[in-house]
Amino acid sequence: MIGTLYGVGVGPGDPDLITLKAHKVLQAAPVIAYPAPEVGDSLARRIAAPHIPAGRREIIIRMPLDPKRFPDRGAYDKGAAEIAKALRGGEDVAVLCEGDPFFYGSFMYLFNRLTDAFPIQVVPGISSLMACAGASLTPLAARNEVLSILPAPMAAADLRERLLRTDAAAIIKLGRHTPKVFAVLRDLDLLDRAHYVAHATMPDQQVQMLADIDPEEVPYFAMILVRKSGVGL
Amino acid sequence: MIGTLYGVGVGPGDPDLITLKAHKVLQAAPVIAYPAPEVGDSLARRIAAPHIPAGRREIIIRMPLDPKRFPDRGAYDKGAAEIAKALRGGEDVAVLCEGDPFFYGSFMYLFNRLTDAFPIQVVPGISSLMACAGASLTPLAARNEVLSILPAPMAAADLRERLLRTDAAAIIKLGRHTPKVFAVLRDLDLLDRAHYVAHATMPDQQVQMLADIDPEEVPYFAMILVRKSGVGL
Repeated sequence: MIGTLYGVGVGPGDPDLITLKAHKVLQAAPVIAYPAPEVGDSLARRIAAPHIPAGRREIIIRMPLDPKRFPDRGAYDKGAAEIAKALRGGEDVAVLCEGDPFFYGSFMYLFNRLTDAFPIQVVPGISSLMACAGASLTPLAARNEVLSILPAPMAAADLRERLLRTDAAAIIKLGRHTPKVFAVLRDLDLLDRAHYVAHATMPDQQVQMLADIDPEEVPYFAMILVRKSGVGL
Repeated sequence: MIGTLYGVGVGPGDPDLITLKAHKVLQAAPVIAYPAPEVGDSLARRIAAPHIPAGRREIIIRMPLDPKRFPDRGAYDKGAAEIAKALRGGEDVAVLCEGDPFFYGSFMYLFNRLTDAFPIQVVPGISSLMACAGASLTPLAARNEVLSILPAPMAAADLRERLLRTDAAAIIKLGRHTPKVFAVLRDLDLLDRAHYVAHATMPDQQVQMLADIDPEEVPYFAMILVRKSGVGL
């Protein structure tokens, strides 16, 4: 009997924004695993803390650099090997994933390494996309509108083209790319439709119009939501 | 004292894919409201059923036609007026929303009518996007990839252009538009990367490669996920 690997979305930050299903998987799994920085806490582990019973074995996948910006092949190889050992021993392993496992999540690196050898189940989570829309009371898209998820590191000209061709957009992975994004949105006359959300659903949540923030001081876990038309109907 | 309006995401179908927060709001709210077809059951009400205590007052917003395809102004006017009356009387009202309230959800029509007069909170839900990715074990997007949400009713040429310009796509609202979508994907040589999911997380869930289904027999609550590159790393 080999174990099952669960990719468990733990949501955007508020521990109550975890699903009942994720809660049940975390109650039952004898082993949990999660990525963490080289030194210090794992965000996913902190979000899930109230749902993890005492005495669970924990596999910590330490990343030599910020795993969101610089995923490290060797760290995932090592983590996957450790998880595989537990699965081969018949233990289920729950991997904690910020937001949703398959929406720009690092879980897919473990998934890729383990999917041929082990049964895998994914428990979807509340992603930052839905969390930011809810926090800022900004509908993402309606009816037959096109919604584009645009990572901020792309070139300004590319971002401009894509914003021109979409009805609504979520611009993610902001951080140091924010001044460029700010300039493109201003140029397209979209600043008054651009909502800024940082640390959605966490105690330090920040919701403002983009025009009112300092684009030089934006964290990585922030998002801009733009919708060209009003709600309608 | 006026009441608060809650837009509550009840998730894609599995009653366990509701958040603890949504569960708590539904335990506390004296009034629940939801859209329903002119005759018969509301899907959102059915998903949320295990979480709704007995004896709650229910405001049913009857739609003269399929509300996803043909939202009806008058029905929302009437529903919003009934909700407003409860809120003015000091009662909190929880509106049940399939998936997530702000991801192509009809909640935004109520939101639009009530946001100037009442406090509103949105409880994000697991959307069909994340549910279909999890059900089909298909990562949506990674790193700096662009993800496009494309409603199937658009013209074939438009769909083709947008698919050419994106790294990954979710094609939604399929139904009778599926033969057109199928032809465009075949033409772009993307059929072998196109995953089809219907009724995600429900008892009648269907997960297949798009190439293996009959495009003439596709329900409205189905989605195609395409990702051009592999997982990488």
